[in-house]
Amino acid sequence: MPDQNRVDVEKARELCITAYQRHGVPAQDAALAAEQFILCDLLGIPTHGLRRLSNYIGRIEVGGINPKPDIRVSSRLPAVAVLNGDGGLGTVIASRGVQEGIRRAKENGIAYVSCINSNHFGGNASYGWQASEAGLVCISGSNGTPTIAAPGGKTPAIGNNPIGYAAPGPNGRHFILDMALSIASRGKLRALRDKGLPIAEGVALDKDGLPTTDAGAALDGFVLPIGGHKGYGLATAIDLLSAVLGGGGIGTGIRHQFKQPDQPSNVSQFFLMIDPAATVGRDAFQQNILDFADWIHGQPAVDPAQPGRLPGEAAAERMARNRVEGIPMDSDEYDRLCGLADGSLSGVVPES
Amino acid sequence: MPDQNRVDVEKARELCITAYQRHGVPAQDAALAAEQFILCDLLGIPTHGLRRLSNYIGRIEVGGINPKPDIRVSSRLPAVAVLNGDGGLGTVIASRGVQEGIRRAKENGIAYVSCINSNHFGGNASYGWQASEAGLVCISGSNGTPTIAAPGGKTPAIGNNPIGYAAPGPNGRHFILDMALSIASRGKLRALRDKGLPIAEGVALDKDGLPTTDAGAALDGFVLPIGGHKGYGLATAIDLLSAVLGGGGIGTGIRHQFKQPDQPSNVSQFFLMIDPAATVGRDAFQQNILDFADWIHGQPAVDPAQPGRLPGEAAAERMARNRVEGIPMDSDEYDRLCGLADGSLSGVVPES
Repeated sequence: MPDQNRVDVEKARELCITAYQRHGVPAQDAALAAEQFILCDLLGIPTHGLRRLSNYIGRIEVGGINPKPDIRVSSRLPAVAVLNGDGGLGTVIASRGVQEGIRRAKENGIAYVSCINSNHFGGNASYGWQASEAGLVCISGSNGTPTIAAPGGKTPAIGNNPIGYAAPGPNGRHFILDMALSIASRGKLRALRDKGLPIAEGVALDKDGLPTTDAGAALDGFVLPIGGHKGYGLATAIDLLSAVLGGGGIGTGIRHQFKQPDQPSNVSQFFLMIDPAATVGRDAFQQNILDFADWIHGQPAVDPAQPGRLPGEAAAERMARNRVEGIPMDSDEYDRLCGLADGSLSGVVPES
Repeated sequence: MPDQNRVDVEKARELCITAYQRHGVPAQDAALAAEQFILCDLLGIPTHGLRRLSNYIGRIEVGGINPKPDIRVSSRLPAVAVLNGDGGLGTVIASRGVQEGIRRAKENGIAYVSCINSNHFGGNASYGWQASEAGLVCISGSNGTPTIAAPGGKTPAIGNNPIGYAAPGPNGRHFILDMALSIASRGKLRALRDKGLPIAEGVALDKDGLPTTDAGAALDGFVLPIGGHKGYGLATAIDLLSAVLGGGGIGTGIRHQFKQPDQPSNVSQFFLMIDPAATVGRDAFQQNILDFADWIHGQPAVDPAQPGRLPGEAAAERMARNRVEGIPMDSDEYDRLCGLADGSLSGVVPES
């Protein structure tokens, strides 16, 4: 590890591909899957980067992820497709979905692809980035294990489904929004519980569906979505666009990636892409998005050193730096990556 | 008015069409525009129903809305279109956009339509309902006058842009989600100010971009979006999908419908439609959405009499009742509708 805290991008990619291949993933799929981790790490989203490799390999080892899926694409009309992922790596399935979407959107001006029988796909950002690099606007999302109650409910009914929007900006400075629908993540609640601190009001409910500020009680209960019924509604819309429209799993049809690691999660993703070449033209679109950014940047800020920004601007800056200086990674993470690649370490699936 | 609090649907429609025609709107457009009000009133969204007719007519009278727009559709590929609304009624322009979207989505399995040079279009719900009636899934949205600051900003940078999702359910029980992105509406803040009551923390900022619980200071400042940067991000995504992608107005290019009533607002709407016939088939989709609803309904509720629901279920019940019993309307509203239709009243544009 040349730098104490960074790893060269090509070196990291090579280790990841080797690790996947050692666990039965064909070379081409290993490269697709590795690229998603690399993109997330470059964009500054390490929670969906190489840090996840050990989880994914752990699930391959216990049979929950199929390393050699027979991915099948069905399509009744050129701009629409459903991809059955056969329980493979979510990052492979979704990458194939994005490739289908890009090809079909370039031919038809627009495309929709649903990926069913999939597993955890990382985040929307890396796929949105790929669509943006291809010159396309992208809306995407994934359903997930239910963790959020319906308004008035006291059991998890719907996933903390992430939604993504992306659009091509000049010189790789793409518009990228990737957000889950809870106010706070379970990881944040765990950190507060471990420190003995309370959580803010309105962030979570206990297991009986009643408001709580106790982090432990919240972890036994569930997180609340942004805007109450609004965030809940958005979560249902993502199930609708991914699973209901594609014929994938909902509710009990979905298995938890950590609590049932040995079974395919059966989650669904969707990718909706539009080619600006079919509306205003690519050059005009690029100018429009620059004008939009200029408008936001030009607003007076409370702290003039911190002007307003469009989603994705900070990520683009992190990416430019990380490409040159390498991916931030501590020595434990680097050692784990090397161990997974040389076969001295097994994958580890966290408990929750 | 046969019932003290309700008006027959056909009577209300006829009065609305007559009022529009009296103000220069051609018969066919008057019927399209009236239908949007009627649908909103039937669905139980009176804020975007016939109550708005006086505002719209007021804006026609002062020249801000063009009663006879030359609406032009341009399309480079069959599934994508941009409709230039020529500053007409937003409800006419968006209705035409929905018609284009339905036709193109049925032929291609999917379609995107941007409506630029538009005016206030009501809400997403009525358009989503029309797409659902045609058997299509619909994502829609509109940008608007900036009223929300970017995170860290102290001026309105982006509209409280409404976003909509809709999907066909059995027997007109469609999935319909229509939501703006602020935690609370300005109308709600006005009501609290008028009662001398404070607003909750985290709902609004004062004119300097600082947190406030004073309703008056909040009205001089701006409302906050759901989930902070998440709601802000969603608002920017809607500007992206409507105006940036269609070539419409953003920022200062948009005029406030009430503060600058005599100028076209220059807002943009978008409609993205997908035909389930091109994915799983219409019958399978209908079964999938029923299964989804059953899953939500089957969750234990804090109050067993109030089970969780999918977005649109309450609206479908209101619509079924209102179709039979008539549109809820008090006698003042009914008198205003009659006055606008017989020419004894002029339109009124509110001040804010």
